[in-house]
Amino acid sequence: MGEAPQIRMRPARREDVAAIVRLLADDGLGAGRETVGDPPPPDYLAAFERIATNPQALLAVAEDAAGRVVATLQLTFIAGLSNRGADQALVSAVRVDSRLRGRRLGEAMMTWAMDQARARGCRQMELLSHASRTDAHRFYERLGFAKSHVGMKRAP
Amino acid sequence: MGEAPQIRMRPARREDVAAIVRLLADDGLGAGRETVGDPPPPDYLAAFERIATNPQALLAVAEDAAGRVVATLQLTFIAGLSNRGADQALVSAVRVDSRLRGRRLGEAMMTWAMDQARARGCRQMELLSHASRTDAHRFYERLGFAKSHVGMKRAP
Repeated sequence: MGEAPQIRMRPARREDVAAIVRLLADDGLGAGRETVGDPPPPDYLAAFERIATNPQALLAVAEDAAGRVVATLQLTFIAGLSNRGADQALVSAVRVDSRLRGRRLGEAMMTWAMDQARARGCRQMELLSHASRTDAHRFYERLGFAKSHVGMKRAP
Repeated sequence: MGEAPQIRMRPARREDVAAIVRLLADDGLGAGRETVGDPPPPDYLAAFERIATNPQALLAVAEDAAGRVVATLQLTFIAGLSNRGADQALVSAVRVDSRLRGRRLGEAMMTWAMDQARARGCRQMELLSHASRTDAHRFYERLGFAKSHVGMKRAP
């Protein structure tokens, strides 16, 4: 476990898409379902445009001191009537470069995400994490997340 | 268990907010955290405006044959890079009038929700359900949802 690398969080740009897709693919579950390429396949660029033009979505990257993209996450800000109209922030697609794991980079990134959620007036953060990602669950529990819900999925 | 009531799904209007809040409060977990009133407290109306002006959000109600609001759910359409840029639909705040439960109204409503998600090009639907709602988990499993994830929350 090395020292925590200096990172800077910022909104993702179109030219980051290839690096983000590499992070998504550098993962046990992601490896089989992503297609890495530079330029990235057009489906990814189209999805990036939908995210970038949605004021309720924030796709972010962590840059290291050399300006390399080393981690990513996405926030979606969701208004709802529940809880007296409390906005929620959904965190998804959290990935850290496998060479940098265990160095508190994820923690720094999630702290930034919580700051963003508070600044947008969200009263709750939520996430779904695959049942097999037990290391991730421990990581989120250390950050104060409670495993209070089940997460369910199906194709529509 | 009576016959399945005739329902019609439609987007919620501002004048439905009081009825939706009553449904949210008519629930073991919701009872303690909602404030019912007609007109509803302003926080709910403000949240409704944020939902209604967001093209990626769809708050819906089920009306019975007499035009009464008897159920509600919310969909949020989320673009992401994962899975080759596959859009997801998050389902939340699913509530059925307690007098009408067990009559397949929830099933009709979720079928409608899946149609909406497909029409918007979503390749996945997802939801978080409180760990204590075991009846709801069985309901969603019957509809083909897999309990493949954990759902985690914290205040930011």
